Amino acid sequence: MDSINNKSIRVAVIGASGYGGIQSIRLLKEHPDFEISFLGGYKTAGLKWNDLCPFLPLENDPTINAVDLSEITDKSDIVLLSLPNGISSQLTPKLIKEKVRVVDLSADYRYRSLEEWKSIYSVESSKHSRKDELLCSQAVYGIPEWNSIEISKAKIVACPGCFPTASLLPLMPFLKQGIIETDGIIIDSKSGTSGGGRVPKEHLLLAESSESVEPYSVVGHRHTSEIEQELSNLSGSNIQIQFTPHLVPMVRGLLSTVYARLRDPCLTAEDCKTVLETVYRSCPSVEIQPVGVYPKTKWVRFTNKALISVQVDQRNGRVILMSAIDNLIKGQAGQAIQSLNLMSGLPTCKGLPLIGYYP
Amino acid sequence: MDSINNKSIRVAVIGASGYGGIQSIRLLKEHPDFEISFLGGYKTAGLKWNDLCPFLPLENDPTINAVDLSEITDKSDIVLLSLPNGISSQLTPKLIKEKVRVVDLSADYRYRSLEEWKSIYSVESSKHSRKDELLCSQAVYGIPEWNSIEISKAKIVACPGCFPTASLLPLMPFLKQGIIETDGIIIDSKSGTSGGGRVPKEHLLLAESSESVEPYSVVGHRHTSEIEQELSNLSGSNIQIQFTPHLVPMVRGLLSTVYARLRDPCLTAEDCKTVLETVYRSCPSVEIQPVGVYPKTKWVRFTNKALISVQVDQRNGRVILMSAIDNLIKGQAGQAIQSLNLMSGLPTCKGLPLIGYYP
Amino acid sequence: MDSINNKSIRVAVIGASGYGGIQSIRLLKEHPDFEISFLGGYKTAGLKWNDLCPFLPLENDPTINAVDLSEITDKSDIVLLSLPNGISSQLTPKLIKEKVRVVDLSADYRYRSLEEWKSIYSVESSKHSRKDELLCSQAVYGIPEWNSIEISKAKIVACPGCFPTASLLPLMPFLKQGIIETDGIIIDSKSGTSGGGRVPKEHLLLAESSESVEPYSVVGHRHTSEIEQELSNLSGSNIQIQFTPHLVPMVRGLLSTVYARLRDPCLTAEDCKTVLETVYRSCPSVEIQPVGVYPKTKWVRFTNKALISVQVDQRNGRVILMSAIDNLIKGQAGQAIQSLNLMSGLPTCKGLPLIGYYP
Amino acid sequence: MDSINNKSIRVAVIGASGYGGIQSIRLLKEHPDFEISFLGGYKTAGLKWNDLCPFLPLENDPTINAVDLSEITDKSDIVLLSLPNGISSQLTPKLIKEKVRVVDLSADYRYRSLEEWKSIYSVESSKHSRKDELLCSQAVYGIPEWNSIEISKAKIVACPGCFPTASLLPLMPFLKQGIIETDGIIIDSKSGTSGGGRVPKEHLLLAESSESVEPYSVVGHRHTSEIEQELSNLSGSNIQIQFTPHLVPMVRGLLSTVYARLRDPCLTAEDCKTVLETVYRSCPSVEIQPVGVYPKTKWVRFTNKALISVQVDQRNGRVILMSAIDNLIKGQAGQAIQSLNLMSGLPTCKGLPLIGYYP
Repeated sequence: MDSINNKSIRVAVIGASGYGGIQSIRLLKEHPDFEISFLGGYKTAGLKWNDLCPFLPLENDPTINAVDLSEITDKSDIVLLSLPNGISSQLTPKLIKEKVRVVDLSADYRYRSLEEWKSIYSVESSKHSRKDELLCSQAVYGIPEWNSIEISKAKIVACPGCFPTASLLPLMPFLKQGIIETDGIIIDSKSGTSGGGRVPKEHLLLAESSESVEPYSVVGHRHTSEIEQELSNLSGSNIQIQFTPHLVPMVRGLLSTVYARLRDPCLTAEDCKTVLETVYRSCPSVEIQPVGVYPKTKWVRFTNKALISVQVDQRNGRVILMSAIDNLIKGQAGQAIQSLNLMSGLPTCKGLPLIGYYP
Repeated sequence: MDSINNKSIRVAVIGASGYGGIQSIRLLKEHPDFEISFLGGYKTAGLKWNDLCPFLPLENDPTINAVDLSEITDKSDIVLLSLPNGISSQLTPKLIKEKVRVVDLSADYRYRSLEEWKSIYSVESSKHSRKDELLCSQAVYGIPEWNSIEISKAKIVACPGCFPTASLLPLMPFLKQGIIETDGIIIDSKSGTSGGGRVPKEHLLLAESSESVEPYSVVGHRHTSEIEQELSNLSGSNIQIQFTPHLVPMVRGLLSTVYARLRDPCLTAEDCKTVLETVYRSCPSVEIQPVGVYPKTKWVRFTNKALISVQVDQRNGRVILMSAIDNLIKGQAGQAIQSLNLMSGLPTCKGLPLIGYYP
Repeated sequence: MDSINNKSIRVAVIGASGYGGIQSIRLLKEHPDFEISFLGGYKTAGLKWNDLCPFLPLENDPTINAVDLSEITDKSDIVLLSLPNGISSQLTPKLIKEKVRVVDLSADYRYRSLEEWKSIYSVESSKHSRKDELLCSQAVYGIPEWNSIEISKAKIVACPGCFPTASLLPLMPFLKQGIIETDGIIIDSKSGTSGGGRVPKEHLLLAESSESVEPYSVVGHRHTSEIEQELSNLSGSNIQIQFTPHLVPMVRGLLSTVYARLRDPCLTAEDCKTVLETVYRSCPSVEIQPVGVYPKTKWVRFTNKALISVQVDQRNGRVILMSAIDNLIKGQAGQAIQSLNLMSGLPTCKGLPLIGYYP
Repeated sequence: MDSINNKSIRVAVIGASGYGGIQSIRLLKEHPDFEISFLGGYKTAGLKWNDLCPFLPLENDPTINAVDLSEITDKSDIVLLSLPNGISSQLTPKLIKEKVRVVDLSADYRYRSLEEWKSIYSVESSKHSRKDELLCSQAVYGIPEWNSIEISKAKIVACPGCFPTASLLPLMPFLKQGIIETDGIIIDSKSGTSGGGRVPKEHLLLAESSESVEPYSVVGHRHTSEIEQELSNLSGSNIQIQFTPHLVPMVRGLLSTVYARLRDPCLTAEDCKTVLETVYRSCPSVEIQPVGVYPKTKWVRFTNKALISVQVDQRNGRVILMSAIDNLIKGQAGQAIQSLNLMSGLPTCKGLPLIGYYP
């Protein structure tokens, strides 16, 4: 963890003051191959990084730069965008034109269809004219355990949302192999409040959200369509899911509890565990737990791991998949760095923390 | 909240040091009609109440008594038992024999079949011989919004568990009226750690359970069978549910998110809200929220209220029911006092808090 | 807790959407003598109360009124102001002119000298011209255990801040009786985040303030001068204290740990406890704990109680005073209602909660 | 963070299941020079480590060994003891006899006088006969920023308690240089609940300790004498302090707020900051904050850093020192590894985390 040399790949980080940016910089700082070559922001331009984030001092106390296209393209090999939805797509086309590759944390390139994005992110889309239909179709959905080859060649990687990450990882092996029914899938997710970002909002105050649990955006949360797009692409059929997010009084962590029906009701939890283990055998960021051990989000806090467990109700052939991640690392910045690794020809988890601190 | 006279009905509380006992005494202390006439305990016998619970001082600083049958029957009209599973059923038959009515917070009389209780509570049942098949069948399941007449006449009221309370209240109207399919019901519940009781256990330490969410007892949690018994009795068919409890880092509060399929997929959320409102119109402890407002457990903390909301996914006719309670009041002691009220000819919510403190 | 009649004293509450307003309305709602006769606000005018605060439904779902002087004076006997510093003093002179008495939760009338207020609350004072020197000198500092007669006759009661309340109550008996040295008093206070109010601020987000403790405004926090004014008035000498507030990751609760030196180092903790008990014998809102039992803020949460304990280090004659309150009740709205009670000729704690819920 | 080779120094860890042991193993696992060559425990002997601690999987899933002296001495160069007070001193003399050096996390060798240890740790000492007066005098108090040379040569290093660590670091420079008065020092400390250990206790349950702050062991906490011993040794005079610990509802983190009087009341906060900076210039584990920035325990969570800030009240010449650490790392296991580093001729902070994760 001391000084590291030979950081040969230059990464620009744009949008540095939110949780996505902070986590990205935290992880890049200790990565052996990436150098933070440019630090840019809109609202924070001109501020000293170490004043803004005294908990994460950077060497030489850099000033956050204004977003200057020529400077960015000049100084960086890849750009990591940690910007609000609708802003990222203002910048990305220009970067791509200059042959700079982009890893985007926002939702702007998660949909293959620009029309669908517009219909779902209507508030953001109304503010901005976007004509990058082509870029949408070229962008790669950045779930590295499934799309590693595409990511390695991508111009734009659209990093998945935190809920889709935790929900897709356990579901995809079963849908891909046709082990579960494609209808009736229910995803009940629980997230810490850092998922709501760093911009102050009343419902995210400790005084409001502590000592309480609540559902929100029941039916129609934006991540529903994102999950459905990926599951439909994978299975070749049009999949509709039920997705309910809940706010839980903790800072970090996200748990998805997924309910589905086995096509063959005789499959056991051990069988299902084998399915998961086989698919994720070579993925250091996914760990399958023994049957009967259930994932605790604290076990993966501050790591890039997804911890997955499976149980089966043998009375009715229902399978329950449970998946825990750190929403800001595996659910956001860590997964983005997996893409950066792949795009740079590095092992997918290089430089990423896989063991946390407990308790 | 000052001194209250005319407390004419004498209630004995046995098992006073756990959370169930503490809440019961807290609520009885301010109830206008009940007098705590006897305070008994096994492990705590001989201790001064005010030393044990300085946060809840009782007048005259009573000593906790040993559990002496003749003294209890002599001094009380009704007995509230807040004892561990398997202990309650050692005492109850003797009390009933002496014509003392019992409200039991444990699971001992929740099942109509003694055999079923034994199969589910095998650890406790192995320790104790029980032959009270008859009492099991005579006991009334104490969900006052549905069984008020039976409760009012009951010798034994078996108070529901916290998860069944939060899950049955939203489901029963829909099953009773045949509005939802009887199969495929999924209950995903989230509980604060006080549900695990006051006896110290590693996983309930703040250092362990704070900043984490986790599922537990996935498939086969004891409350599954309790919920299934009640839903089956109500609907007349054999109902199997999926029930997954989760531990959430907060002290009090329990949220059940329930997924079911509408028989008529054209029903709207407003229609479903009307169903709930109609059933619970005269129940001060159940409040139905406007469509689009979702229950926050903090809104019912320290109250005897269940806050219920309903949403429908019109793409597929799935109904999502959400129900929030304070697990130690509506989910335990408060609901028990509703039964005490009914058994005493009083309004069901008399003396119970219906508005909490926020934040 | 059911419907209460004969609410004969009409109270207007102005500034209803912050935590001070919410707590005031919560407490007034169940008070047997006060009727909320007018609900006013600046930013919230025109909104439905029950939409704004679904956790605290009011009968007939009132609309929050604009702040109309003639309507307020017409409809109310006393006005409770829960407004930001600097706003209250815009309204108060007009109310006093119309013979309406005021209980003010802000800092505007806490200082006998308008100049001192201006020097300390410079930001607020710069925005507003204030010429109410006379009103400042007429206002009564609303600490009911010490100023009950003055409060009962007051035109304006300036309710103490939360830190002063918790700090003055344990200190005043010792300074009044000359038992401790007047110099070298140190007050180290710990407060929950609700003390920072309901307006969203980054450092009060759960994601930021959870899992952390921190000092703030070290040397020169505004409450320092407020405490010093009251201690100096009481003792007749010019007292300087050291006051350090800390932010603690919890919603409600405030603990002050106070260090002072005994003039007679032979006094024991029991002696000091007797001093406290004697002074507060007839104060239902102050409870002195046995020597060796220390106050836990949770024990007074949701109550109007101050829980005080004292310990002495006999090696050096230092006395340690510990005082726990609920910052939003005894530290704010509950104490205000004590003043309302006294101004109305009622017992000081009438209608106020003195026992909380545990855990 | 992947596989690391050349771990040439063999460390045995005895007492692996408590928080001290868990943290030690977490840190050693990623240390480039230390190999965990033996894992021993009393109660946990025979258990699989990965079952016990699924959140911290070790390669090859080792079994925890019984505490076998010859095996330990055979397999290890240094032994890290993470055992309860009174148990460590049963084992240490045998290890020393076999020329194995010991780093002890318990209090057993923190006092130069065995008699003093016995008087303070009477409960533990009554259980065990100890005759190791000599070892007590030979043991080195393991505060690496002050005793690095002694530690590097020590047979036994007694690691400081968490409260002494956070309190001594800010105080020692000022006492050493005679800048503050030696009497009247007050230390008001706030600790997360993990400081109470992993053995379940009622007051450490989330349901009990969440949403509350409380003082404990007021006057006479064991760490008082430990701090006094070190300050007295340093200053050459007999120093008595006032120390009050508080329990704060968070997992990790410890803040000490220290009050003292400047001998020269004209010194400014900037002057005092310079004192601290000069002393700790070459200590990577101590960071001095700018005047006016106060330490937040979250900023040092999961790091081996102490974050120190100083403020002066120029009205009275009082200096306020604030010091934040992670109680389980800098306050326990991390500091122990600093000693292991020094004993092995390595840089004091080698392999230790100095930047945490935020939020």
